[in-house]
Amino acid sequence: MFKKIYPVLFVSLLFCVVIYAENREISSFNWHNPAKCSRNVINNRIAGTKGYTRLPAAMKKRVSTQVWNLSQNSAGLSISFKTNSNKIIVRYQVDKPYSMPHMPGTGVSGIDLYIKDLKNMWVFASGKYTFEDTIVYKFENIDQRQGLKNFKLYLPLYNTVKWLEIGVPDTCNFSFVVRNSKKPVIVLGTSIVQGACASRPGMAWTAIVERALDIHVINLGFSGFGQLQKSIINMIAETDAELFILDCMPNMLPTRIDTKITRKRIVNAVKRIRRVRKNTPVILTEHPGFTDQIINKKHNNLVYQINHVLNDAYVTLKKLGFKNIYVLSAKQINLDINSTVDGIHPSDYGMILYAEAYKKIIRNILYEDK
Amino acid sequence: MFKKIYPVLFVSLLFCVVIYAENREISSFNWHNPAKCSRNVINNRIAGTKGYTRLPAAMKKRVSTQVWNLSQNSAGLSISFKTNSNKIIVRYQVDKPYSMPHMPGTGVSGIDLYIKDLKNMWVFASGKYTFEDTIVYKFENIDQRQGLKNFKLYLPLYNTVKWLEIGVPDTCNFSFVVRNSKKPVIVLGTSIVQGACASRPGMAWTAIVERALDIHVINLGFSGFGQLQKSIINMIAETDAELFILDCMPNMLPTRIDTKITRKRIVNAVKRIRRVRKNTPVILTEHPGFTDQIINKKHNNLVYQINHVLNDAYVTLKKLGFKNIYVLSAKQINLDINSTVDGIHPSDYGMILYAEAYKKIIRNILYEDK
Repeated sequence: MFKKIYPVLFVSLLFCVVIYAENREISSFNWHNPAKCSRNVINNRIAGTKGYTRLPAAMKKRVSTQVWNLSQNSAGLSISFKTNSNKIIVRYQVDKPYSMPHMPGTGVSGIDLYIKDLKNMWVFASGKYTFEDTIVYKFENIDQRQGLKNFKLYLPLYNTVKWLEIGVPDTCNFSFVVRNSKKPVIVLGTSIVQGACASRPGMAWTAIVERALDIHVINLGFSGFGQLQKSIINMIAETDAELFILDCMPNMLPTRIDTKITRKRIVNAVKRIRRVRKNTPVILTEHPGFTDQIINKKHNNLVYQINHVLNDAYVTLKKLGFKNIYVLSAKQINLDINSTVDGIHPSDYGMILYAEAYKKIIRNILYEDK
Repeated sequence: MFKKIYPVLFVSLLFCVVIYAENREISSFNWHNPAKCSRNVINNRIAGTKGYTRLPAAMKKRVSTQVWNLSQNSAGLSISFKTNSNKIIVRYQVDKPYSMPHMPGTGVSGIDLYIKDLKNMWVFASGKYTFEDTIVYKFENIDQRQGLKNFKLYLPLYNTVKWLEIGVPDTCNFSFVVRNSKKPVIVLGTSIVQGACASRPGMAWTAIVERALDIHVINLGFSGFGQLQKSIINMIAETDAELFILDCMPNMLPTRIDTKITRKRIVNAVKRIRRVRKNTPVILTEHPGFTDQIINKKHNNLVYQINHVLNDAYVTLKKLGFKNIYVLSAKQINLDINSTVDGIHPSDYGMILYAEAYKKIIRNILYEDK
């Protein structure tokens, strides 16, 4: 009888010790909440935006319910901090399902931690994650002896963060880094801009470009609803940006919006921006194409039409005397048949192709004469 | 009163018409079941294997429960067919959750359809999918006028297919293509070989290489349990293969298996293969490295140790006089910090890097003297 009970007691005891150790670990952590910080430590938001969201409250009445709801997703937002800890835990809750059929939980709802190495390059720090009621990412064995102290935490691409805390052991230093005053690049776009279907937030092309060029990128990708809406164009024109990118063609196909309306919206978007921003460069991005165009005439025709409309609008704008307007072509983006998950949404490989094209055109526009 | 009822009646009627049209569409389809075909039309299985699985029944007693269960996943299997239909529906059921946190449903449980174009190149055909109780993929607008008739359907990478049917309208031709008699390349490996974390089955590196080199590749990746087990080595040696690839190091780190045992298993694996296959080339693949090694000394040391063991075993084998043994190095695979979802499992971008390295070494080995 006792022989049977002893092992049970032993296992129970062991269990208690593990639980105690785990709780002790958590309780000896200091938790830092970016949203409660007195200074703005959430990067890449339009002025006036609160929390882990992407539009100011005043916009709620001016955009559709769909756009407003999507604006609550934290795509493109990041948090910078410094710590000397070799262990970091990030815990948070989101308010929607963790994944989509073609995009994993790590991309839809996950976070990404990057660390600056000695050569000032961003290194991806892989963490162990659990997608329970509260999502927890643990990063361990961070080698601090190399003087690695600058961290950047990317937030979920397709979910809404209810609350988030960053924890380090209470014996370690921790401080948020307030964003520098560089002007941002503002990207208005579709699901592709929002990050579908990157495997994790740091692999959305806006994030890759941001790290590569050391710039700020404001991600205003609204999945399915990036349609050059007047209200949003007016809003972004209020920002003193380095550059505007209008990458909305995949949501404006002739099956959804009449080509005449699309043409008018492109021309009007640039006119509205120019009213406030006399010289800020604007990139108009072509539809990248569907990867099955060679065997799907319908797709082929739709892409031909929409890109014809975009280039036609571009010619009109040039004729009207607008300067610093550029087109990024599908050919420059150069997606191939291996670069999407479903024929249109880039995988990480497609995101790298997108980022390469954007890096090149942005470098040319912003730095060629410097 | 009637005014209120009319709209309801109208909507109900409309609903019935839609349901009827949908059912009519399905009922006018002919459904083809590869598993019930009298000839073997399921590609890339070891001889004696049944259904959508990867080990013969006789192996059940010789491998661990984990390996056996993983062998029921359809990773690497494909079905070739011809049809003149411009619409194809694939419907099937699987027996596990559709996705993993770091790998989407389309990769874990989805299928991929490729079509040979006029230039004899495989083109990815994107479909519309629904992940309900029965998973359904619909492919439409396939341009048959270009003479596109050869299709290849890849099966789920991380799930077990209970049943599967391919449907085309009953006015169209359909026939399965029986595999040609080319000798296969056999790949024994880990989760990476099994396909984690490709966004869809056609993006696992084994599938990319298969399409690029027009070869057969048998995928024996067993997630977490690719450990050069004696029973599996003996089994694959029975196959008259073009080439054997042993890519198991990520599952044999010193934290899991003593380095002396790993060394012995590598040497013994080649000896066992050579007992039956006197000249068939064997590639020993290094651990590709963790992408955070620069900031994680623990990971750095583990990879250094395991790859040292592999190269040490290789030198021993060369000294013993074995020929046609090759090492594929981490440097050749060349993963960078953007190529994994979690520091070790390749995204589609990482899969492309893996495929490039394998294409190069396989071409060199198999075709350099031809």
